Amino acid sequence: MPIKSRIRTIPHYPHEGIQFRDVTTLLKDPIGLRTTIQEIVTRYQSIKIDKVVAIESRGFIVGAPVAYALGVGFVPIRKPGKLPAETIGCEYQLEYGSDRIEMHVDAIQRGEKILLVDDLIATGGTMEAAAKLVQEMGGEIVECCFVVDLPDVGGRAKLEKQGLKIFSLCQFEGN
Amino acid sequence: MPIKSRIRTIPHYPHEGIQFRDVTTLLKDPIGLRTTIQEIVTRYQSIKIDKVVAIESRGFIVGAPVAYALGVGFVPIRKPGKLPAETIGCEYQLEYGSDRIEMHVDAIQRGEKILLVDDLIATGGTMEAAAKLVQEMGGEIVECCFVVDLPDVGGRAKLEKQGLKIFSLCQFEGN
Repeated sequence: MPIKSRIRTIPHYPHEGIQFRDVTTLLKDPIGLRTTIQEIVTRYQSIKIDKVVAIESRGFIVGAPVAYALGVGFVPIRKPGKLPAETIGCEYQLEYGSDRIEMHVDAIQRGEKILLVDDLIATGGTMEAAAKLVQEMGGEIVECCFVVDLPDVGGRAKLEKQGLKIFSLCQFEGN
Repeated sequence: MPIKSRIRTIPHYPHEGIQFRDVTTLLKDPIGLRTTIQEIVTRYQSIKIDKVVAIESRGFIVGAPVAYALGVGFVPIRKPGKLPAETIGCEYQLEYGSDRIEMHVDAIQRGEKILLVDDLIATGGTMEAAAKLVQEMGGEIVECCFVVDLPDVGGRAKLEKQGLKIFSLCQFEGN
């Protein structure tokens, strides 16, 4: 398990009872970074992909090398107010309160095949909002790709019910 | 100029009188992304580099593919409170007020050769703080690499006076 074994678990971060899965130990290791990107690229290299869309900011660390290696363009989805040109946004619920993500309106073209990338799926709220942004602009989502899935938290099941395809390189039980 | 011509200028963003150089139009273009990364990789591929350290969050989009293509590890420098394990931090001055960046204390080892990456250098304040973090952990900075330099703002000159080497793929006059 060259990937899972390089991910560090931080107990009780950011809250009591949460096991935080820290991919920085995976990514700082040359073999960890290379294996992570190559396993994703291997899955998609023979599928038509026009752009990789990734979610700020850990998603950028995975999504940008994948876009480069696949030879396609890269599009960032960011926190509010960070993108300088015209954007569309989507709000989503957090445990307490809500958050919002935005994408440039000219970032993708109608009919483009989009690979959505983030580092980790837990509740799936951020990726659900990202998928709405891509679909609103007419993009066709090929798959949502993660390094880590926390299946017990239920995000994967929720997104699959909405017809999205989910792929992850590894899974951790619990939260 | 496959790189410079793909960078969009947004007038008066984020403030009146500022010309914002927007690299998202460069990065969403497959040739733009590929050329950007390959030009950087060509410069460093025959030099000893142990890790790429990049600054949140546009720096991640450039730094992570460079690390992957060079076959080295990737380390993120982030805003306060975003890294889950033990960190060191550095405050730096903004036009109004101050900001702070952090890095995991175990991210780099003493003597490692570090390539620092961000998308753009203006005043150089963030990169100056990033360089201090790397040096505090014993890293040896090979060079600070940017897609865009705004030489009239003076960041490049300031960092060079401190003995740092600066490289950029393109320059824009003015601010």
